[in-house]
Amino acid sequence: MQPHDLRELLEQVRAGRLAVDAAAEKLTPVADLGYAHLDLHRKDRCGHPEVIFCEGKTPEWVAGLVGKLVEARQDCLATRVSEEQSKLLADQFPQGQQDRLARTFHLPAAPPAPPCGKVLVLTAGTSDLPVAQEAAVTARALGAEVQVIADVGVAGIHRLLRHQDKFAGADVIVVVAGMDGALPSVVGGLVACPVVAVPTSIGYGAAFHGVAPLLTMLNSCAANVVVVNIDSGFKAGYVAALIARRKNVAGG
Amino acid sequence: MQPHDLRELLEQVRAGRLAVDAAAEKLTPVADLGYAHLDLHRKDRCGHPEVIFCEGKTPEWVAGLVGKLVEARQDCLATRVSEEQSKLLADQFPQGQQDRLARTFHLPAAPPAPPCGKVLVLTAGTSDLPVAQEAAVTARALGAEVQVIADVGVAGIHRLLRHQDKFAGADVIVVVAGMDGALPSVVGGLVACPVVAVPTSIGYGAAFHGVAPLLTMLNSCAANVVVVNIDSGFKAGYVAALIARRKNVAGG
Amino acid sequence: MQPHDLRELLEQVRAGRLAVDAAAEKLTPVADLGYAHLDLHRKDRCGHPEVIFCEGKTPEWVAGLVGKLVEARQDCLATRVSEEQSKLLADQFPQGQQDRLARTFHLPAAPPAPPCGKVLVLTAGTSDLPVAQEAAVTARALGAEVQVIADVGVAGIHRLLRHQDKFAGADVIVVVAGMDGALPSVVGGLVACPVVAVPTSIGYGAAFHGVAPLLTMLNSCAANVVVVNIDSGFKAGYVAALIARRKNVAGG
Amino acid sequence: MQPHDLRELLEQVRAGRLAVDAAAEKLTPVADLGYAHLDLHRKDRCGHPEVIFCEGKTPEWVAGLVGKLVEARQDCLATRVSEEQSKLLADQFPQGQQDRLARTFHLPAAPPAPPCGKVLVLTAGTSDLPVAQEAAVTARALGAEVQVIADVGVAGIHRLLRHQDKFAGADVIVVVAGMDGALPSVVGGLVACPVVAVPTSIGYGAAFHGVAPLLTMLNSCAANVVVVNIDSGFKAGYVAALIARRKNVAGG
Amino acid sequence: MQPHDLRELLEQVRAGRLAVDAAAEKLTPVADLGYAHLDLHRKDRCGHPEVIFCEGKTPEWVAGLVGKLVEARQDCLATRVSEEQSKLLADQFPQGQQDRLARTFHLPAAPPAPPCGKVLVLTAGTSDLPVAQEAAVTARALGAEVQVIADVGVAGIHRLLRHQDKFAGADVIVVVAGMDGALPSVVGGLVACPVVAVPTSIGYGAAFHGVAPLLTMLNSCAANVVVVNIDSGFKAGYVAALIARRKNVAGG
Amino acid sequence: MQPHDLRELLEQVRAGRLAVDAAAEKLTPVADLGYAHLDLHRKDRCGHPEVIFCEGKTPEWVAGLVGKLVEARQDCLATRVSEEQSKLLADQFPQGQQDRLARTFHLPAAPPAPPCGKVLVLTAGTSDLPVAQEAAVTARALGAEVQVIADVGVAGIHRLLRHQDKFAGADVIVVVAGMDGALPSVVGGLVACPVVAVPTSIGYGAAFHGVAPLLTMLNSCAANVVVVNIDSGFKAGYVAALIARRKNVAGG
Amino acid sequence: MQPHDLRELLEQVRAGRLAVDAAAEKLTPVADLGYAHLDLHRKDRCGHPEVIFCEGKTPEWVAGLVGKLVEARQDCLATRVSEEQSKLLADQFPQGQQDRLARTFHLPAAPPAPPCGKVLVLTAGTSDLPVAQEAAVTARALGAEVQVIADVGVAGIHRLLRHQDKFAGADVIVVVAGMDGALPSVVGGLVACPVVAVPTSIGYGAAFHGVAPLLTMLNSCAANVVVVNIDSGFKAGYVAALIARRKNVAGG
Amino acid sequence: MQPHDLRELLEQVRAGRLAVDAAAEKLTPVADLGYAHLDLHRKDRCGHPEVIFCEGKTPEWVAGLVGKLVEARQDCLATRVSEEQSKLLADQFPQGQQDRLARTFHLPAAPPAPPCGKVLVLTAGTSDLPVAQEAAVTARALGAEVQVIADVGVAGIHRLLRHQDKFAGADVIVVVAGMDGALPSVVGGLVACPVVAVPTSIGYGAAFHGVAPLLTMLNSCAANVVVVNIDSGFKAGYVAALIARRKNVAGG
Repeated sequence: MQPHDLRELLEQVRAGRLAVDAAAEKLTPVADLGYAHLDLHRKDRCGHPEVIFCEGKTPEWVAGLVGKLVEARQDCLATRVSEEQSKLLADQFPQGQQDRLARTFHLPAAPPAPPCGKVLVLTAGTSDLPVAQEAAVTARALGAEVQVIADVGVAGIHRLLRHQDKFAGADVIVVVAGMDGALPSVVGGLVACPVVAVPTSIGYGAAFHGVAPLLTMLNSCAANVVVVNIDSGFKAGYVAALIARRKNVAGG
Repeated sequence: MQPHDLRELLEQVRAGRLAVDAAAEKLTPVADLGYAHLDLHRKDRCGHPEVIFCEGKTPEWVAGLVGKLVEARQDCLATRVSEEQSKLLADQFPQGQQDRLARTFHLPAAPPAPPCGKVLVLTAGTSDLPVAQEAAVTARALGAEVQVIADVGVAGIHRLLRHQDKFAGADVIVVVAGMDGALPSVVGGLVACPVVAVPTSIGYGAAFHGVAPLLTMLNSCAANVVVVNIDSGFKAGYVAALIARRKNVAGG
Repeated sequence: MQPHDLRELLEQVRAGRLAVDAAAEKLTPVADLGYAHLDLHRKDRCGHPEVIFCEGKTPEWVAGLVGKLVEARQDCLATRVSEEQSKLLADQFPQGQQDRLARTFHLPAAPPAPPCGKVLVLTAGTSDLPVAQEAAVTARALGAEVQVIADVGVAGIHRLLRHQDKFAGADVIVVVAGMDGALPSVVGGLVACPVVAVPTSIGYGAAFHGVAPLLTMLNSCAANVVVVNIDSGFKAGYVAALIARRKNVAGG
Repeated sequence: MQPHDLRELLEQVRAGRLAVDAAAEKLTPVADLGYAHLDLHRKDRCGHPEVIFCEGKTPEWVAGLVGKLVEARQDCLATRVSEEQSKLLADQFPQGQQDRLARTFHLPAAPPAPPCGKVLVLTAGTSDLPVAQEAAVTARALGAEVQVIADVGVAGIHRLLRHQDKFAGADVIVVVAGMDGALPSVVGGLVACPVVAVPTSIGYGAAFHGVAPLLTMLNSCAANVVVVNIDSGFKAGYVAALIARRKNVAGG
Repeated sequence: MQPHDLRELLEQVRAGRLAVDAAAEKLTPVADLGYAHLDLHRKDRCGHPEVIFCEGKTPEWVAGLVGKLVEARQDCLATRVSEEQSKLLADQFPQGQQDRLARTFHLPAAPPAPPCGKVLVLTAGTSDLPVAQEAAVTARALGAEVQVIADVGVAGIHRLLRHQDKFAGADVIVVVAGMDGALPSVVGGLVACPVVAVPTSIGYGAAFHGVAPLLTMLNSCAANVVVVNIDSGFKAGYVAALIARRKNVAGG
Repeated sequence: MQPHDLRELLEQVRAGRLAVDAAAEKLTPVADLGYAHLDLHRKDRCGHPEVIFCEGKTPEWVAGLVGKLVEARQDCLATRVSEEQSKLLADQFPQGQQDRLARTFHLPAAPPAPPCGKVLVLTAGTSDLPVAQEAAVTARALGAEVQVIADVGVAGIHRLLRHQDKFAGADVIVVVAGMDGALPSVVGGLVACPVVAVPTSIGYGAAFHGVAPLLTMLNSCAANVVVVNIDSGFKAGYVAALIARRKNVAGG
Repeated sequence: MQPHDLRELLEQVRAGRLAVDAAAEKLTPVADLGYAHLDLHRKDRCGHPEVIFCEGKTPEWVAGLVGKLVEARQDCLATRVSEEQSKLLADQFPQGQQDRLARTFHLPAAPPAPPCGKVLVLTAGTSDLPVAQEAAVTARALGAEVQVIADVGVAGIHRLLRHQDKFAGADVIVVVAGMDGALPSVVGGLVACPVVAVPTSIGYGAAFHGVAPLLTMLNSCAANVVVVNIDSGFKAGYVAALIARRKNVAGG
Repeated sequence: MQPHDLRELLEQVRAGRLAVDAAAEKLTPVADLGYAHLDLHRKDRCGHPEVIFCEGKTPEWVAGLVGKLVEARQDCLATRVSEEQSKLLADQFPQGQQDRLARTFHLPAAPPAPPCGKVLVLTAGTSDLPVAQEAAVTARALGAEVQVIADVGVAGIHRLLRHQDKFAGADVIVVVAGMDGALPSVVGGLVACPVVAVPTSIGYGAAFHGVAPLLTMLNSCAANVVVVNIDSGFKAGYVAALIARRKNVAGG
């Protein structure tokens, strides 16, 4: 809770316009909804509110969580939104931004600040685009400037090298790849910034739903490559934004 | 090659003190040693010279690579140094710094600059210390300030929480853990900076030489956790230093 | 068969009201239904009648087994009840209690005794609720008092710590978690009672349908954590009740 | 720290016989040894002091930890003690009890109380004995009465059934088995108490160092079987003792 | 081709009632259907004609193969028959015997001879019945006498032991089990004949679609247990019949 | 781009009939479609244009890529075409050749040259035919002469041996097999040319969707066997054609 | 215990030459040695005494078990005998037959009866010989006639086919193979008797210590192939002898 | 056997200088040594004599096989030669060529013909050299011209690209790589000839002894990449030579 909001709330209590119980609940860092303990304190602790992972939740639960975040005046980002959940959210929160390729819902608490830090997202193939888009939406929601370049896998290395000028400007590069997962190693060897590699479940047979590129990336011969879970565009975008915005922190 | 060195070399050529062939070789960004192509260009491209991974190499090969880096006036860091390799290096490069817990060899080309950025390294158990130390040596070699806190695993969570004040000051936290690998998830939920998780092969039975903590970390419920290979203290330290020093980059 | 029932049956035989063959069958500890050998002796041997696992059985087979248990005046608990099975059971045994979240059917042979022992069930996330509910229904069917607290995973550790007062009162704690499966290790380190950990198939990618949390839990750094099969809320609830009710056993 | 010790310590401070700094350190629930944070608070929190896992530690580290526990007047149990560690411990703590089959070191802080609760330990084969012995030593250290019966695997089921009278008296049964790991399922179906199953790495080929019996046990068709890590006699003994001693807790 | 048929065919050729080409094709031990090379020689070589595995084949292909076997006057057994294939076969070969539980089609070339050898088929659970039935149908098709006893798993060992008298009469026992797969080890220890173990994909979580019972069975501590593929009732029934009928072979 | 086309294009520029921008785009070796970077240079570099892998792409994306290749006057081959994609392609490119068994689309830029080199494709079973057909279509598209022989698996080895005369004429043999994957080892031992082995996902249980034959083939005791991904008829056909046509290259 | 021995023992009791306690122990079907429960009843139940698996046992334990079997006048077979165990056995039981290739010890209770049934053992390679020899020694100890033919793997199929005449005479064939494990499928397709396949850990890389041939054999396309554990020559020989000797059983 | 040798042998028989039995043995295509069936026919069938795989064989067995090949006047190549085997071979066959890096022994039957076809061998790292050298020795033994370029992995892609001129001249390229195994995908995208990829067991942690690069290579996004077993330089060299020498075959 921001200082301004806090003061206003206490004013209401003093003036008798807000009951003590209601105020206490608003000040509690956890909202207990029975089916969930929404962590309202995470923004203060981690710099960003809790993000809603929608898989395995009923549309009503998702909408309930969104509503609670809106009520607490916090940014609301939801990922892996199903068709059914998407419809209920569009109904109840028409002002939210939905991206069907990325399967995300975003409802900021305030107009966005100017972006801070540059994130470049590369994909090895066209089929990796949904995961890349989830990374892009997430990184933008966290305040980064994001550019996506699709289908520059290593089997046609000149496709990658012609974009090399864009690498220098990036604070961090997210590389999304399935099948052989070789792209992060090549990119990592070309740049001085961190590379966040995202294996995807694209491929067949011995790709084993993303295990092959996951192992490739963990064993990358480039020293600046870190890895997130298979298909986790969300986590890659989140960390990329964290890294990118550090350059505005005062030097130590 | 630094401008000063370059100018001196060309002077020698002009003056006839250095043959053209010898000069050409010195200017080539790759040193072909037969058994290796040392990438002398990496410093310019990636911000740090090639680091020597010693496993599977003869002591003579390792010493040859170190010699070539010294000759090229580049920083030299070697990891996974065996007893036998360590002895030959101590003989030939007595000025190098060896750390037997981390199994590293470090021979900087110049006195270190003041450190830039703070890296905090945590371990879940005492047995994770060698991997943590490899991370620490690497991050320091790349210019970061590093602090290590050992044995603060989640089964005694108050051990971790009493160090919470140190978390705020860190630009990035490296968390080293074997067995259940649960520490990064807890740490990730307490901080606003990126967390680089390193699974270790410590444990037995269903730990499967590090597979258990690797999977735990990839599935971390904290959004700011990225992962590197099992026992790869080196890669964690490398990326942590890259992240930490970004705060001195001019804002965008 | 309870002594009272036994005596009554023998009376009927003596009085000629029950044929010897029919009586013999009633006294046999196994009911052979052709498709199943229902173990009517288990209550005497293990303290609780056989529980019906419904997967892979036709609705008619399930109903047949329920009928046989009712006939034998034993408690009837069925798990993993499908929609189709649920309907047939509702038709034939309207007095049975069905829980659609837990997918259970319960038809006690007698009004419940006062609960004995306290079982606390925690979940890491909202999506773990169905498995937790199966554990709760089972433990209650076996006579324990049960409380469920949902969504207190380790990424927001204060959510867990604010419930710490409830831990002391529990005789045993069931912890249900998917993804990183880190919660049992943290809980185990906070309490003096046994912790029964249940990995769930919640998550994606490298969660491998529950393998990741299963390994985490088997490698827990807390000494009081034991593990059951992935998604096996049933087994966790069963054992938890067994442990909880031991406190009423006369000391040794 | 026990009340008596605490009072004495404060007396010394008051009388000036103990410096404030030294006293503060003694009162801290964590002993920071640099290489380890010994959790001195665990006894109060979990009912038993921290147990020392010796793998991956130098003999000096192990001895240091033992010394610290002795100094804090807490029970000291160490597991997986190597030959080399064993010798140093025998030298420095000759009063400690060493069991070379179990590879344990035990140094109680006080003479043992009368045992509370009965733990029965069964093994499927002769080669499972070291793991069973680790379970037995641990359960005894935690105050339970323990009996071990070796080599009663299912291929000669009469060997098991002739000991059936001992099952009834047990509060919990630990079953240790490698290879097919089938014993816990049979035992579980014969008793009304919890069964803690320990898979061992005994066997060859498709036993995969304990994976086969681990999977067998997780899939046990008996409802009262819980599982611990491969070869983890320690954890089985620990939990078994926790379960066994609950019967003395006042009923709820 | 039987001697009688062969002589008749040659008679037809001699008499000019059958063209040489047509006769040649009938004498060829392989029928090339384009999509398949039906092995008409297998009966002579292996004692039984080729059995048709229906998965991955169109109904027309299956019917074509059946037709070819009928034409060659060989027994026809087909396994894993789908609904759609079943309908076409019922249409074209109404005299064939279909078993919907076993998913088999059987069309013998001649009335069955008196059975030779006794095969006993046991299942651990009710859900293992379809696989057991496939074994029974196959063994009967190969001439054995077969008895099936369902649901005698080890968690209620008395259910098994009450059938022990039937074990002595069997020439071979097929044991079908999913989940923990423990039944073959117990049965193997009670008998002097070979035991053919069939793991099934029944179960969930760490059963991994039959991997758990497969490993259990491969590691059986009973020396007389051999194993076939997961869910392969067919192969178990086939080999069991081969073993059972050996007792009529003249002694050596 | 072929010399003739290039000259014509430059003529158009010179004559002012084509804008410089439009011409520049046509000369660029990569077509950036936003969702894809089509590698128009691959034909010059690798001898064959980029082949379109259709899985994970919308029908519109696939049609867009086909259109671009047609526009660039390059051969167009697409694999793993879904029903929906097939329909759109049939609509927009009726002159394309579709093979529904192989799930391919082929639209050559010019009438085919006489075939060069002979590829023999063998399958172990009937169910392996779709993968074999994908290999055949691909090899033909690359200019090879191809013959397919189905269902000659090792359990009836005479079925294979009767085709042995065809082996000698082949420049390379593609062997497609699921289940035990044993066929390539036998074929490899009979011939002097390379054998390309393709494991298929045909089978059940411990076939693990193609893992079993994949491992068999990687461990083949015949020295001339190389392996491609599970079900990758495409890659086998591609490499087979490359090998087959080498015999027309001038000797070295 | 044989009738003759039993009568003699009772005579001794009657005559007072043997104490009742000592006699009771001799009549007990289990010998409890503390570290083992030797199953003296197995001969009556399973047709052959317990076989001693030596891994994980001290030489003294092995010798103790051998002594007990000798004392009970039962055949003694021990497998996986280490160098150290071998020496102690040679010392204490010089009349035992040791086979160092097979690593077995055999001490029959009586001169062998004429062999019953023929077992043929084939190996794919020379390196599979130790496992094959263990099978041969075991099958001979159980009374079968055994012939071993080495190194007839499928890459040179004529090596196998020239021994085809020996196949017809065999009652059962044991096939031992590592690497691709393809031999059993080929052999199975050539014969009418059961084939017992033994995967070996011979090979490297993707052979995964016997997993590759194990999977091959489980997926064999020949219907008469059953499988035992990796490297388990013992179990293959045991079952082969059981099958082979059935032909002397009276027909049913 | 070559025609000249054959004629000479028959002359000796005719002249009575060679016994018929001895001659018959010399003409048999298989040499039965008891421990091995040496396939003397393979040269005629497959174009090259049997190659001796030395693992798991005694030095005497290896020497016996070499002697038999020499006696049959066939080329002799042995791989994976141990220190001990190497010494015995040096003693008995001093004219043989031993390569200690590749661990090979080569003893040609005749002076080499001029090489036919060009094989290029690339390695990703220095530690991959032994496997690469085994490939080179093998390909040369089969008559190819071979060049090896070491340590051109993708993290410094300019190291690879500077050798691009050598790619055009190659008939086939062998790429040897451990860790991420990314090099074959990049190379495959640059050339028009087949690429044979060899994963190595170099690396640690999630490299899983070569599994990671094996999967990468099987999933290569370049269409011209085929794969052999982990560390199998031998097989890669063998097939590469087969491919390379096809260009001299008369066109079809």
